[in-house]
Amino acid sequence: MDLALSLGRRGLGNVWPNPAVGCVVVKEGRVVGRGWTQPGGRPHAEVVALAQAGDTARGATVFVTLEPCAHHGETPPCAEALVAAGVARVVIALGDPDPRVNGQGAALLRNAGIDVVEGVRANAARRDQAGFLSRVTRGRPFVTLKLAASLDGRIATASGESQWITGPEARRHVHALRMRHDAVMVGGGTARADDPTLTVRDMGALRQPVRVVLSRHLDIPIESNLARTAHEVPLWLAHGDRAQPKTLDRWREVGADCFSVPVVQSALDLSAVMDALAERGVTRVFCEGGGGLAASLLSEGLVDEFVGFTAGVALGAEGWPSLAAMGVGRLAEAPRLDLIETRVIGADVMHRWARRD
Amino acid sequence: MDLALSLGRRGLGNVWPNPAVGCVVVKEGRVVGRGWTQPGGRPHAEVVALAQAGDTARGATVFVTLEPCAHHGETPPCAEALVAAGVARVVIALGDPDPRVNGQGAALLRNAGIDVVEGVRANAARRDQAGFLSRVTRGRPFVTLKLAASLDGRIATASGESQWITGPEARRHVHALRMRHDAVMVGGGTARADDPTLTVRDMGALRQPVRVVLSRHLDIPIESNLARTAHEVPLWLAHGDRAQPKTLDRWREVGADCFSVPVVQSALDLSAVMDALAERGVTRVFCEGGGGLAASLLSEGLVDEFVGFTAGVALGAEGWPSLAAMGVGRLAEAPRLDLIETRVIGADVMHRWARRD
Repeated sequence: MDLALSLGRRGLGNVWPNPAVGCVVVKEGRVVGRGWTQPGGRPHAEVVALAQAGDTARGATVFVTLEPCAHHGETPPCAEALVAAGVARVVIALGDPDPRVNGQGAALLRNAGIDVVEGVRANAARRDQAGFLSRVTRGRPFVTLKLAASLDGRIATASGESQWITGPEARRHVHALRMRHDAVMVGGGTARADDPTLTVRDMGALRQPVRVVLSRHLDIPIESNLARTAHEVPLWLAHGDRAQPKTLDRWREVGADCFSVPVVQSALDLSAVMDALAERGVTRVFCEGGGGLAASLLSEGLVDEFVGFTAGVALGAEGWPSLAAMGVGRLAEAPRLDLIETRVIGADVMHRWARRD
Repeated sequence: MDLALSLGRRGLGNVWPNPAVGCVVVKEGRVVGRGWTQPGGRPHAEVVALAQAGDTARGATVFVTLEPCAHHGETPPCAEALVAAGVARVVIALGDPDPRVNGQGAALLRNAGIDVVEGVRANAARRDQAGFLSRVTRGRPFVTLKLAASLDGRIATASGESQWITGPEARRHVHALRMRHDAVMVGGGTARADDPTLTVRDMGALRQPVRVVLSRHLDIPIESNLARTAHEVPLWLAHGDRAQPKTLDRWREVGADCFSVPVVQSALDLSAVMDALAERGVTRVFCEGGGGLAASLLSEGLVDEFVGFTAGVALGAEGWPSLAAMGVGRLAEAPRLDLIETRVIGADVMHRWARRD
């Protein structure tokens, strides 16, 4: 199952709205088929692994990280493929809560006389499927917030200089993190200040994450790296309902996909943004700031994982804060997160934290 | 030598102005004497180890972390004691740059026909002796700056609430760090806001570090924990030359030791503070903030080691900054530090950084 989990993770960021599943076929103690959800979400892991196994799949044991699908979608159901292949046993890490599956995959296998075991390495599978599960069960994507800051939590000098606070190894790690997410998100201020491209570079990415920019008035320069690359890599702009039609037209001309979300207290309604992203199939969002968006996501409890990079540099209180004002009154009311791990990456410290449920 | 180094470290924080030295006497492959500089700085490590070894010291090999002293101070020189004990060989980690020793200890041993080896584990000894070496060679103490902050580098909420951002394990670790320093230092603002005691608690400390508070006008409430405990644990107040004589008298009455340092640009001259501490024998200072003092120490290049604790809490930009304004213009001008280590302590991340020379 560990091999299947590791294969499954290869699909993270490439297969949305589908889950990134891994599958291993074992016959007489030997691996005879390996598969993972292919870029774009099809073919499914089981189909790939069964094709590789061929006739040897008959009587084999199949390890799969998520319950095989039971519904006729764009592909025939995997559960039927497993039955047709004549496998003897299917070991499943995690049930699929998608209402079209939700136990029916396992039932279909059992009814065909196949021995089914469920819940093997379920926690690991749950972590890997966090995006897919979030979209299916909560109707919003799993959100990772990244902040790269100085020892005193500053993301730029007073004049806005931020390149580079962290070292090349940390920046490369950020590209690897982008690659494992379906979408990369920033606020309009960051888009204006940094003129980022937000693509995955030098990582052999199979599919670029969608770039999502939140900008109430769409007041981002059209002469920007984001606009320049919008025909090659998807650029989605979430804007308020009062954005100028002329501005919208110009952004659509360069290739951006613009969608409107409600405005609450002079800011885009972040829950509505998340709903819209989930509706569009996004399961994993990687937010790279800036301080305003990051603070709002944390305040509204929308951050599932926080990835901090701390660099050995001191910028002082004139520097830009990594989190804008949050209206925290008492310390007990402040959002708390639980440490997952800390690691040295190049010259910097990386620390990951999980939402406290 | 590793055993001698480890014994030597027991004295850190207890032996100033003397160095914390460790000594091991080995005869025919067996440890026959162990010693370290005793609290208050005397007896010296070699004397303790030789006393333990007794007659078996004759013909033995002695491992000592710092060159044995050669001068008649408050105790007879250790080099002479080693000669008198009839040891055959002395292995020294590091030469003592104190002008009263500086090679004369080793020379005295060699002249008596003892085989002397120098430089074994010198780098480790140099790290342990950083405070002693700093005082002797730079005329100022080694300064460790500690900051315990939220994910966004805040040390208190807008209302000043800071208890507790980090967890009990991190706070206990801070007491262990205090214990290994000669003095604990804070700015007047922190003394006013937190009413700290700054003592080492629940660690079996042999000698409490001196509490040093920097306050230009001595505008700290006399009804404070620092004042209340000044008769038991030394309290030194560094103030400007215009502090009111009446205020000084009141602080002296409660037991504080007040000394004046020059004022530069409306603040105490930190270099002068460090000179004064070194003159008073302090070799290792542990600074616990606040943001103003921490920023000034970093700006002036006075921080030798930075110990950060990052807690999994987000406070937002209204919170108190861990570092006050530093006047950093370009990113390239900002003080940079090199990572020593990162470690999980309880629910928090600890990260240590060294000055970049």
